[in-house]
Amino acid sequence: MPNSKYLKTIIIDRVNGDEITEVEDVTIEEARLTVYLNDEKIISMMCIPKDQIAHTIGFLMSENVISNVDDIQDIKLSEDGLRVDIQAAVDTDSLQNLYKEKTLVSGCGGGITGNVAGDLEIPFNQTSFVISPQTISSEVKKFYADSELYKLTGCVHKAMLFLEDKSVVTAEDIGRHNAIDKVVGKCKICKLDTTKSVLFVSGRLSSEMVVKAVMHRIPIIVSRTAPTYLGVQTANIHGITLIGFARGKRMNIYTHQGRIHG
Amino acid sequence: MPNSKYLKTIIIDRVNGDEITEVEDVTIEEARLTVYLNDEKIISMMCIPKDQIAHTIGFLMSENVISNVDDIQDIKLSEDGLRVDIQAAVDTDSLQNLYKEKTLVSGCGGGITGNVAGDLEIPFNQTSFVISPQTISSEVKKFYADSELYKLTGCVHKAMLFLEDKSVVTAEDIGRHNAIDKVVGKCKICKLDTTKSVLFVSGRLSSEMVVKAVMHRIPIIVSRTAPTYLGVQTANIHGITLIGFARGKRMNIYTHQGRIHG
Repeated sequence: MPNSKYLKTIIIDRVNGDEITEVEDVTIEEARLTVYLNDEKIISMMCIPKDQIAHTIGFLMSENVISNVDDIQDIKLSEDGLRVDIQAAVDTDSLQNLYKEKTLVSGCGGGITGNVAGDLEIPFNQTSFVISPQTISSEVKKFYADSELYKLTGCVHKAMLFLEDKSVVTAEDIGRHNAIDKVVGKCKICKLDTTKSVLFVSGRLSSEMVVKAVMHRIPIIVSRTAPTYLGVQTANIHGITLIGFARGKRMNIYTHQGRIHG
Repeated sequence: MPNSKYLKTIIIDRVNGDEITEVEDVTIEEARLTVYLNDEKIISMMCIPKDQIAHTIGFLMSENVISNVDDIQDIKLSEDGLRVDIQAAVDTDSLQNLYKEKTLVSGCGGGITGNVAGDLEIPFNQTSFVISPQTISSEVKKFYADSELYKLTGCVHKAMLFLEDKSVVTAEDIGRHNAIDKVVGKCKICKLDTTKSVLFVSGRLSSEMVVKAVMHRIPIIVSRTAPTYLGVQTANIHGITLIGFARGKRMNIYTHQGRIHG
């Protein structure tokens, strides 16, 4: 069974009307990952302890604490997989914001919101990347077909970056935010270009999800479910094409529809 | 339309295969609520700007910053609904933890995790409250039937407390954590007893959801979806009955099944 390392077998009581049966069941692992940046503890995150290095890099870049993967001098994961130590040149203001803002997020995966709402100036996304509705529909279909952990536990979110050369990078986590940070981190490590890509996510599109796309210059974001009004506004203001309710041949285009045509 | 205050109408492009139609659609409002405790800004939370007072009280009590509603001297909401000012006697250690821990959570609604993982000693929940599987099934059914905002936007979570006298208190939010804090806050304001109640939530049961039940001495927690392994462990250690996949007449009892019988 793939990914079985992150599944734990337990004994449960299954109820069906008046019948109760003792059965084996699987649940997903959840752990607290602690990040030490330049020898200082900066954050703990509840997550699936998988792709921890990519997760850490993606998170710090989403928060603008690290602006380029080349600014990382050293990064290592502890043997138990619960601690990442990273040495890097940081943006001091954004690191301070991480401490001060303490914004609670609305979405699965938690986190301090991207610094877009703060002082950081992000130019309007004018990338001319184009994709057809047919390609979106077929990628959404594959996106769900490939989600092994989700099928087994019903308890994970997935994120996927569809790149210009039609290759895809994926990540799963119990949190929506984490899944995005992981997939972006993987691309950053491999120096894959996220500025001409589509971000597919399994969860709802609240403003923080859109902020992550803004931070990484991802021009298009697609979900099977709904955006919030602030998510739509954020996408609109920053030049992001936002698509929700992408199911079968249907989808709703909320903003900047110019990037979607046959 | 009930709750329409929290819905925003927008114009979108609806795609169905090759057909694109411009239509009106509704999205849910999402806003940043900032909490000032004893004249100091302590946190911002992305949420539906509704039940802000209950949300603030529930959150601070979930985090053990305030241990009793009687410790609140004054609480008021700003005219724009985006700022709560609260004067209260606080637990200084827990307030410090709020700053220091910065634990990202796995679940919708975000937040610094409950202080259970810290120094706080919570006794094992031995409450003898009992409920039948039939009652759980019928309450789950009503729980979803009554969720107006969810039906209209597909973008909210709901929490409900089913009390000993069979009355229910509900709350909705874009975040799972927020929905729980709101519903608990409402009960605290009205001095309703949460120690003999069942918490129904729409989202997945990660450890932080269970921690909230632990903090408020709620003996039973029920969800339509999956728990994580750490969620199950947390419930087990703290004496909470955890039920997942409650759908129709079926449900999985993960821990402390003694509270569930006809």
